[in-house]
Amino acid sequence: MTMNRILLLFLLLLSFGASSQAQDDQDAFYIRKIYDNTLTNGKCYDWLQYLTRHIGGRLAGSPQAAAAVEYTKQLMKRMELDTVWLQPVMVPHWERGEPEQVRIVNSPKMGTVPLNALALGNSVGTGPMGRTAEVVEVKSLDALDSLGEQLRGKIVFFNAPMDPTELNTFAAYGKAAGQRVYGASRASRYGAVGALVRSLTTRIDDIPHTGVTVYQDGVEPIPALAISTKDAELLSRLLKEEPVQVFIRNTSHILPDKLSYNVIGEIKGSEQPDELILVGGHLDSWDVGTGAHDDGSGCVHALEVMHQIKQLGYQPKRTIRCVMFMNEENGLRGGRAYWKASNEAGEYHLAAIESDRGGFSPRGFTADGHEEVFSKKFKQVLKWLPLLEPYDLRFEKGGSGADISGLRSQKGLLFGLKPDSQRYFDYHHTPIDAPDVVNKRELELGAAAMMSLVYLLDKYGTE
Amino acid sequence: MTMNRILLLFLLLLSFGASSQAQDDQDAFYIRKIYDNTLTNGKCYDWLQYLTRHIGGRLAGSPQAAAAVEYTKQLMKRMELDTVWLQPVMVPHWERGEPEQVRIVNSPKMGTVPLNALALGNSVGTGPMGRTAEVVEVKSLDALDSLGEQLRGKIVFFNAPMDPTELNTFAAYGKAAGQRVYGASRASRYGAVGALVRSLTTRIDDIPHTGVTVYQDGVEPIPALAISTKDAELLSRLLKEEPVQVFIRNTSHILPDKLSYNVIGEIKGSEQPDELILVGGHLDSWDVGTGAHDDGSGCVHALEVMHQIKQLGYQPKRTIRCVMFMNEENGLRGGRAYWKASNEAGEYHLAAIESDRGGFSPRGFTADGHEEVFSKKFKQVLKWLPLLEPYDLRFEKGGSGADISGLRSQKGLLFGLKPDSQRYFDYHHTPIDAPDVVNKRELELGAAAMMSLVYLLDKYGTE
Repeated sequence: MTMNRILLLFLLLLSFGASSQAQDDQDAFYIRKIYDNTLTNGKCYDWLQYLTRHIGGRLAGSPQAAAAVEYTKQLMKRMELDTVWLQPVMVPHWERGEPEQVRIVNSPKMGTVPLNALALGNSVGTGPMGRTAEVVEVKSLDALDSLGEQLRGKIVFFNAPMDPTELNTFAAYGKAAGQRVYGASRASRYGAVGALVRSLTTRIDDIPHTGVTVYQDGVEPIPALAISTKDAELLSRLLKEEPVQVFIRNTSHILPDKLSYNVIGEIKGSEQPDELILVGGHLDSWDVGTGAHDDGSGCVHALEVMHQIKQLGYQPKRTIRCVMFMNEENGLRGGRAYWKASNEAGEYHLAAIESDRGGFSPRGFTADGHEEVFSKKFKQVLKWLPLLEPYDLRFEKGGSGADISGLRSQKGLLFGLKPDSQRYFDYHHTPIDAPDVVNKRELELGAAAMMSLVYLLDKYGTE
Repeated sequence: MTMNRILLLFLLLLSFGASSQAQDDQDAFYIRKIYDNTLTNGKCYDWLQYLTRHIGGRLAGSPQAAAAVEYTKQLMKRMELDTVWLQPVMVPHWERGEPEQVRIVNSPKMGTVPLNALALGNSVGTGPMGRTAEVVEVKSLDALDSLGEQLRGKIVFFNAPMDPTELNTFAAYGKAAGQRVYGASRASRYGAVGALVRSLTTRIDDIPHTGVTVYQDGVEPIPALAISTKDAELLSRLLKEEPVQVFIRNTSHILPDKLSYNVIGEIKGSEQPDELILVGGHLDSWDVGTGAHDDGSGCVHALEVMHQIKQLGYQPKRTIRCVMFMNEENGLRGGRAYWKASNEAGEYHLAAIESDRGGFSPRGFTADGHEEVFSKKFKQVLKWLPLLEPYDLRFEKGGSGADISGLRSQKGLLFGLKPDSQRYFDYHHTPIDAPDVVNKRELELGAAAMMSLVYLLDKYGTE
């Protein structure tokens, strides 16, 4: 190599370095702009107020779910996205019926004691007369199996608490949720006539937490209800002293499947329109409360991303698609329909970001993907960390979101927005998951975090 | 060197490596234990309930402040700390008087409009008849100076908003607080007869935020009141259209200084008792609200550290001292008395940690110290990061806490617990800084974070 060539190479390297620095500065500047605009002109909080205060709880199949479909479709149209459409999906239609009754009866020590209860989602009812049976407490599904035939005619009381020492409350939830999802069905195999489940929260209070229960095929469905943690502790104490009979009554019932929709809007990419970047949340919520954190916040996070793209005049190279998934809570039919259609159409989601962990102060993103490509792509993403760390954002490996999990085979990256998790399970699936427990700034910061990641994914891709 | 010696050296190095790894494991184990115990047996939330629900707002000189002194002294005694004592301190005694009245009067467009207002701490009153004057709006103290004599006879309206785009809300507060602290005094120099100050929060709502105002020596004190951000925006809009007269009335007044106390308890160190590690918060709060975040949370954080030391049977090498400072809000007399006495006695605070940024989910610590030693000692502390990162804790350079700032000359390290700051200024110095806005888990995590840092400081020192 001649000296001239060496000099040339040196200058070339220098200019690469300089241009990469300029690139970083430009990106830092743009992300600052995203945050500034979201914190001053964001609309997500107003939309959340509408969804929660004017529409309310949005269980799949309910009039409120239909209203939420119409509302978010109108929002997307008003934002003048390139295309807005509804994706039809048949959803389970479960109704809670009359207020639940659960009480300890004929206790020699305490007489009759009403317990705070909510039927679990998809639970069958007891019939109008309710039923009374002796209670058997278990701390795990395995313990249930070991009791076997002793459960015949009994109401099984699943009382495994959520571990308060687990810093990541979602991990604690994951460990304890099996009893709620599978407990009733498994108890029924042994002839049990009902299931009571300790509410999934680390708080000790009077608020029952609902959530889905799943009956396995071929098992006689039995009524399943959650009771508050305080009542679970009371019941457990009493059971240590005497046999306990409980009366349960709920009139929940499943109606025929109903037609509903995922709401989808997109902005076409100018250079690689076939590479999709999805942002989404689920539009349905439980009927108790108004789904402010779960998942009204996630929906308006995703909508705000589209709003910011429009407000900032950002021209995406890839196609940005916003999806309001239907029926995450008690069927996941929206998610399944979406990814089935997408996979069949041969679509490629370069990335999908779901927000379904509440509207709290964001701390980063979990990332997941197909094992063949994940490590390489995740490394690419980690290079953006210096741009996101000033906003307290980090990346970690971990599950993304139920609604996008079926996109894995497309070999793009799957992200979940990760807000601070400490308060989430105070409100999760309860009457108090209501607009006053979502903070405007925290919500806006979540949207800005998602938009910042969308910006980087769109600009640089993941190769 | 013979082969034997080389081998010996090699083995020695190996054992150092192994022992340092074992040390790390031991520390990780102990910190896990601190978190487990605080999250399951912590008392800080109960104490905060007592302080806020049963005692209430604790302005220096008030009966509630005296009750808080007695309560926390009793708590320390019951914990069987080695020594518990009261450090006398004369504090200003300001009383708010009757509910404030502030209203726009005789507006051609709007007639009479009441505004949500609170007298600023230490403000003089208007006299029983109140006063009415024309309002002049300014956006900064500099703008005030440029108006000069035009302010004679006027009520100056300081309307600089807290910057919502600043992620660190304390930084935004710092930039905007000058108008509240110095505005009235500076306006008085030009003959103004009153001051209205926009509340220091990024929220747009009806809640006025009080806080201290300071009159410079030789200046005629004029009444100073905060109005809510919504009312500030209304007033500002109206001023763009017409001259506005405002009536203000407050009967606040300063009484003679009163005797109060810092409450101090300590556990003697077994090896280096003269090296002090301080944990603290300030016991006084504003009279409106009950000082749940500011600074009830900080007080119970510090008390929980002592409680955890006792519960875990931890034997500190250094002396751990817990201080409940009096009168941070409107005088800092407790802090001043403490550090004056400490400096005069030649004490050495190896470290002091104040918690005075609320009871939110902790994100780490700010650290500060004397310039001669800070860099070196901070480097030592940063080595502990791998032990604290699993708990989402980080260190950054930055101010520690007002009450411990005067210990800098002792050349130890000064820390401030740094919780998530997004919600703090929603509640700060308002009637809604009440127990229901503090979350039990988040509070406990703050205490566990402080105790973990105390453990490392005590075990390793900072040299």
